[in-house]
Amino acid sequence: MPAALKAAPAPSPLALVPFISVAAMMRLVNRIGVETVLRELADAIEADFRRWPDFDKTPRVAAHSPVGVIELMPTSDGARYGFKYVNGHPGNMGQGLQTVTAFGVLAEVATGYPLLMTEMTLLTALRTAATSAVAARALAPAGARTMALIGNGAQAEFQALAFKAVCGIDTVRLWDIDPAATAKCARNLAGAGLTVVPCADAAAAVLGAQIVTTCTADKAHATILTDNLVGTGVHINAIGGDCPGKTELAPAVLRRGPVFVEYEPQTRIEGDIQQMPADFPVTELWQVLAGRAPGRTDAAQVTIFDGVGFAVEDFSALCWLHARVQGTGLAQMLDMIADPDDPRDLFGMLTRAGA
Amino acid sequence: MPAALKAAPAPSPLALVPFISVAAMMRLVNRIGVETVLRELADAIEADFRRWPDFDKTPRVAAHSPVGVIELMPTSDGARYGFKYVNGHPGNMGQGLQTVTAFGVLAEVATGYPLLMTEMTLLTALRTAATSAVAARALAPAGARTMALIGNGAQAEFQALAFKAVCGIDTVRLWDIDPAATAKCARNLAGAGLTVVPCADAAAAVLGAQIVTTCTADKAHATILTDNLVGTGVHINAIGGDCPGKTELAPAVLRRGPVFVEYEPQTRIEGDIQQMPADFPVTELWQVLAGRAPGRTDAAQVTIFDGVGFAVEDFSALCWLHARVQGTGLAQMLDMIADPDDPRDLFGMLTRAGA
Repeated sequence: MPAALKAAPAPSPLALVPFISVAAMMRLVNRIGVETVLRELADAIEADFRRWPDFDKTPRVAAHSPVGVIELMPTSDGARYGFKYVNGHPGNMGQGLQTVTAFGVLAEVATGYPLLMTEMTLLTALRTAATSAVAARALAPAGARTMALIGNGAQAEFQALAFKAVCGIDTVRLWDIDPAATAKCARNLAGAGLTVVPCADAAAAVLGAQIVTTCTADKAHATILTDNLVGTGVHINAIGGDCPGKTELAPAVLRRGPVFVEYEPQTRIEGDIQQMPADFPVTELWQVLAGRAPGRTDAAQVTIFDGVGFAVEDFSALCWLHARVQGTGLAQMLDMIADPDDPRDLFGMLTRAGA
Repeated sequence: MPAALKAAPAPSPLALVPFISVAAMMRLVNRIGVETVLRELADAIEADFRRWPDFDKTPRVAAHSPVGVIELMPTSDGARYGFKYVNGHPGNMGQGLQTVTAFGVLAEVATGYPLLMTEMTLLTALRTAATSAVAARALAPAGARTMALIGNGAQAEFQALAFKAVCGIDTVRLWDIDPAATAKCARNLAGAGLTVVPCADAAAAVLGAQIVTTCTADKAHATILTDNLVGTGVHINAIGGDCPGKTELAPAVLRRGPVFVEYEPQTRIEGDIQQMPADFPVTELWQVLAGRAPGRTDAAQVTIFDGVGFAVEDFSALCWLHARVQGTGLAQMLDMIADPDDPRDLFGMLTRAGA
């Protein structure tokens, strides 16, 4: 607390909102173990996807600028309300800043009072990987053990470990246009219990892989994966095409097999399917998880998860965090909610504080 | 900082976001003086309303439940982005909680990085009153000195002081269905340099008033002001009708003279004009302030400001706060933005923190 506030009277308990800082989040994740966190998040996300109709859903609210986007992603299940603030600025990296940073809040619907405020840059990286693994657990061919990982940036290691922890992947084949990114990823995954194979190009990376993950960062219609690179019996986990103007798959790849999405109205705008006609058929993942729609129907099929990230995943992560941080001492209490003795006497609280 | 974090390495300066707590906000406002704050906010809001076309505007994103609403209110002028989280739960008061609480964030559009996070329960009360005063400065009859204040809850004193500081009001006539609220308001305004007249009913309160402010809290189609209570040459400042199902004015009052609103698409949903046909004529206040539309055209006219609160006002307040808090030592630095040495190495930052 800054010196200027030393003399202020202590705020009442109702005024305080637990805050999870970046340092606290790292402490929590390292204590629990990254793979355990990814497994718990995958289970939490899958459980919420199975009760999808309970959620109030809306496409995220985006403010676009020539250099990036700032988005708010709210949702509620009627008992709790969560939202995330997240930016995407590909040019940030050149200034030593993060492309994507995020924070979020979980609140109680009955009172509107926040229950928790937290950093979400790390939590988003974790929940994104966990969501990919939930989709692959449902859609990838049985016995998949090798994953190609194209794009070795900030999301890559989280993907690799989520697929190991949740889907039983034991080998990852890495490729990135920047060899330094691949080297960083390989270094970080050393000792994680995965066989890590840096590759010379995308074609080499997909060799023998039953799962192909694309998580590249350029805001462009890039073609990371062309039709001739995709064999049979593959699950494609395409998560880098996640905003208007940003795609990774050639249209022909999207026609190779059934495409699964999180929330169709949002993915039509942001996902790889933004390249396709408005009536291009897709299936919402929750329907597969809830047993309402078929997933993979044939071992030789190509399945595609066109992931863009959805508010329900953040909600699951916020609820997971709220439960997991209890009793750890990791939360910092923020004096965020004005709490006058008489709720109608906000002005009196202000003037008495000045007396 | 909790003991569990004592050993964590210090976060980099890029990770830190200044946070203005409730205690810090009270300290700042009391240091500057409430009336000066209200005058400065009124000028900031008016300046932003004059450049209204610069702003990215959207109706707020609301999550309604049977007991209240949680809303996100974003806007941007292309250089900065602001949003507010605000709830409205009329039943909260019965549990000793605030009906309305809020917090907000100001961010830089170029990077998406937050510049400031702040409590906004107090700041909203201040900007709401300042906005009312901006409208009245443009619309009220010349020489108005007496205001009726119907509804003496949490917003009442802020309204009284804003109209004193910005519009030159010297007398306020109070009425509330709960005499305890009126007594609280009168007590708080004692010594503020206003003549304060508690009244027995709404009819008594409006006697001799050139400005009538309604700021009641019930979520209902209440009729606080009927046609026969409104004389000629009056400006009505109706700010309590601010969400679907919540109105204060009889439809006949809305037909007495020109109605001014903040942002028409939002006010059609939330304001007193929700009772009127979709083509009921209104003028956006910014057009009057920018000289593009007439305001009051006749001293005997009744003018009506149907205020619901709009994101641009919060943006103005956030920018005002950002400038005013510099150098005060009142901000608390929050470790909110993950800041790895290499932006692509989020995972490495996490694992190194655990080593």
